[in-house]
Amino acid sequence: MAKDFVTRADNYSEWYNELVVRADLAENSAVRGCMVIKPYGYAIWEKMQKALDDMFIETGHQNAYFPLFIPKSYFEKEAEHVEGFAKECAVVTHHRLRAKADGTGLEPDPDAKLEEELIVRPTSETIIWDTYRGWIKSYRDLPILCNQWANVVRWEMRTRMFLRTTEFLWQEGHTAHETLEEAVIETKKMLEVYAYFAEKFMAMPVLKGYKSPNERFAGALDTYCIEALMQDGKALQAGTSHFLGQNFAKAFDVKFLSKENKLEYVWATSWGVSTRLMGALIMTHSDDEGLVLPPNLAPIQVVIIPISKGEEQKAMVDKEAEKLCAELKTKGISVKYDNRDAYKPGWKFNEYEFKGVPIRITLGARDLEQGLVEIARRDNLTKETLPIEGLTDKIEKLLEDIQVNLYNKALAFRENSTREVDTWEEFLVEIEKGGFLSCHWDGTPETEEKIKEITKATIRCVPLNAKEEEGKCIFSGQPSNKRVVFARAY
Amino acid sequence: MAKDFVTRADNYSEWYNELVVRADLAENSAVRGCMVIKPYGYAIWEKMQKALDDMFIETGHQNAYFPLFIPKSYFEKEAEHVEGFAKECAVVTHHRLRAKADGTGLEPDPDAKLEEELIVRPTSETIIWDTYRGWIKSYRDLPILCNQWANVVRWEMRTRMFLRTTEFLWQEGHTAHETLEEAVIETKKMLEVYAYFAEKFMAMPVLKGYKSPNERFAGALDTYCIEALMQDGKALQAGTSHFLGQNFAKAFDVKFLSKENKLEYVWATSWGVSTRLMGALIMTHSDDEGLVLPPNLAPIQVVIIPISKGEEQKAMVDKEAEKLCAELKTKGISVKYDNRDAYKPGWKFNEYEFKGVPIRITLGARDLEQGLVEIARRDNLTKETLPIEGLTDKIEKLLEDIQVNLYNKALAFRENSTREVDTWEEFLVEIEKGGFLSCHWDGTPETEEKIKEITKATIRCVPLNAKEEEGKCIFSGQPSNKRVVFARAY
Repeated sequence: MAKDFVTRADNYSEWYNELVVRADLAENSAVRGCMVIKPYGYAIWEKMQKALDDMFIETGHQNAYFPLFIPKSYFEKEAEHVEGFAKECAVVTHHRLRAKADGTGLEPDPDAKLEEELIVRPTSETIIWDTYRGWIKSYRDLPILCNQWANVVRWEMRTRMFLRTTEFLWQEGHTAHETLEEAVIETKKMLEVYAYFAEKFMAMPVLKGYKSPNERFAGALDTYCIEALMQDGKALQAGTSHFLGQNFAKAFDVKFLSKENKLEYVWATSWGVSTRLMGALIMTHSDDEGLVLPPNLAPIQVVIIPISKGEEQKAMVDKEAEKLCAELKTKGISVKYDNRDAYKPGWKFNEYEFKGVPIRITLGARDLEQGLVEIARRDNLTKETLPIEGLTDKIEKLLEDIQVNLYNKALAFRENSTREVDTWEEFLVEIEKGGFLSCHWDGTPETEEKIKEITKATIRCVPLNAKEEEGKCIFSGQPSNKRVVFARAY
Repeated sequence: MAKDFVTRADNYSEWYNELVVRADLAENSAVRGCMVIKPYGYAIWEKMQKALDDMFIETGHQNAYFPLFIPKSYFEKEAEHVEGFAKECAVVTHHRLRAKADGTGLEPDPDAKLEEELIVRPTSETIIWDTYRGWIKSYRDLPILCNQWANVVRWEMRTRMFLRTTEFLWQEGHTAHETLEEAVIETKKMLEVYAYFAEKFMAMPVLKGYKSPNERFAGALDTYCIEALMQDGKALQAGTSHFLGQNFAKAFDVKFLSKENKLEYVWATSWGVSTRLMGALIMTHSDDEGLVLPPNLAPIQVVIIPISKGEEQKAMVDKEAEKLCAELKTKGISVKYDNRDAYKPGWKFNEYEFKGVPIRITLGARDLEQGLVEIARRDNLTKETLPIEGLTDKIEKLLEDIQVNLYNKALAFRENSTREVDTWEEFLVEIEKGGFLSCHWDGTPETEEKIKEITKATIRCVPLNAKEEEGKCIFSGQPSNKRVVFARAY
């Protein structure tokens, strides 16, 4: 266990908060509910962005940028949407400050009050669909496949770094289609992109499913989601893809002339993932020694630490390190050689272990004389001594192994934490243990609400691969034909 | 001249506005002063970002992210800074909307009034230096070399797309150093990075210099800048790098224990470029036929357009095009094959010409039978017929030529538009003609103000390479020892 570091068993929530700060990922700022993402944390986010962006481009999307501010009246146009966001939005009312009369500082200038208040975007459907009206005249203008990387603001009363912050970073895709079918295909395609990203890059297994009406995005007809299970047994919604039907097209009067020469409303989707994924990444893999990063998202994949005495040994080790770094780089492996004198090797071991660097190579002068180096894996904390000859191929292979191992470990955890539950009594016991509970539900919002009230558990999703199966709702006893997944969630 | 398109000579300002919209770069949004950056425009901005980001990383900087909102009291801490920005800032006063009593819509909820107003960042010195206080204890923590890619808001009364918008995108570097000397070196180094980017990527020659005290950034001791000259003879400030001294360290109490074991205030710099560069790019190269893009920033460097009759010819042309695309891509050239049937070749020629694609290749079935293709250059609108054999090498070379040609053309324009002016009478005549006027100035803010009042010309910069030279101020006749550059500016 890392020194002075609380364990997960002691206090999971405190463990998370401390880890985020001590691994240099982020910290709370002076602005209520807003975080500072530090360089190391931001580098992980940039790797996430790059991988996702590449996949968006590959699937035919283009990036664009829409305004930060949304006029209040736009916001009001889609009834469910405004209902969902009006209670948690930052409102801009003035465009100037002036000196207070008593000289004690500044105040909003009453002469610079906005005629119409502006909302800091909590999501951009309204401003984007207002824009799309000008872009779409005929079926030839469709589909429109835009994505935006942006900051958004939702005023949260209880915030936690990455998981729930007033301002967060995300991407939001907004697409416009000729037909319902095409929009549904897009919605599902982007869910697959997110699931692929979660599994291949984050090494995080996810359930793919759709939300119950209660849990849908405000303004959507269907919300698809990927749900992950954190180490403490709580679920985390890691990404959503919404089929919006014609709701926003109707609210913003976006019609197109179809191939059949008829004026029709456009079909819409939107989909997003956010810096919340950083929280998911941390809580999927990290341990009592600190952060654990999958190689595919690690800013530093390999750290090399020298041990030597005297100038001669130092020169020899530096030379070997330089050669090794160059070889690893030609394989596209990101490597850092930390030969700072001000810090001892032991201090460095702790530092990079805590920061989750997947592989540590120790270049000790005495080992090197025998052509050997020590390799330490962060994922399982094992060490071995290997010949430096042919090392880079082994490192490359090892990074792949670590990536797969982390995924498998997380998958095994999820599988062990997923149970079928068939009675209410059992549910009340099992929900306290955490994990995914696969249960029959009668399909009514009333039952869902009741279960949430009593147990704080919500329906995370109806899994896409749920089998048809006769059963009875765990709460009401009414008939049900498939199981849904309940859990307490972040 | 492109059909229905206003010429530069007719109305430069209208030409600019129309070009931005018709080339699909951006459009005004429903939000006063905020623009929508369309996919084609955003793709150019992304190429700019990539090139700059690579250079920031190479020079040792790291990206991070700081909050969008700044508490009013932070904003007040540096006197000159707040003076510079308080009059043009968006103020958040509430965190919730509620339904109006008369049911006509929403209003800020008086029960959700913020205790302290938040300012949407116009720039981030204050929040960043408040954060740095926690990061810096000793000289070992220095330097801190952070950059942020972000949106900022400055409430502008008269806006123009890219050039002056209420919200804009930019990067802001914020560095912290042990010594004055180190901070000054950083300030100048980043100016060089900007100048290199402007010249090598944008093909835009820039003057490097520093600002007169009147034109400095609010809170800086020295502001270095790159200044470019637009085709209409007006100057445009294309990037700034500020030496902030210890102003922000003092305002936010950021001290460090020096190597000599003394508590000292930290030295600061900040530097930024914004989507304003898009305006500079347009006004440096474009012509009456539309946008002209330097190959190093063109999202599509080469467009291929087929001409064929009947299925057999079409198949043959498609096959050649496919081969050519593959070859160009292996050279890292971005190529688009537009074989849409719904549009005629002539329409496509106009489309890509207007969008500034550097090279157009026409694959005509009849030409191809003789092993020939037609190449059109966007920069000088010339065409030639070339053998398809060995074409990709020629295209690669041609892209380089176009890049250099655009730079040389812009440089020649600037040189022809730069004059030494030695009398006030001459100044009054010459300033009407536009361009850079190199003049003696007595060094006083009063003279600078007067000249601005009378002629709208400002001191763009004191060039770094200005020679020592005895002279007399054009306005006051007082002695001066070097020339500064005056111009009217965007």
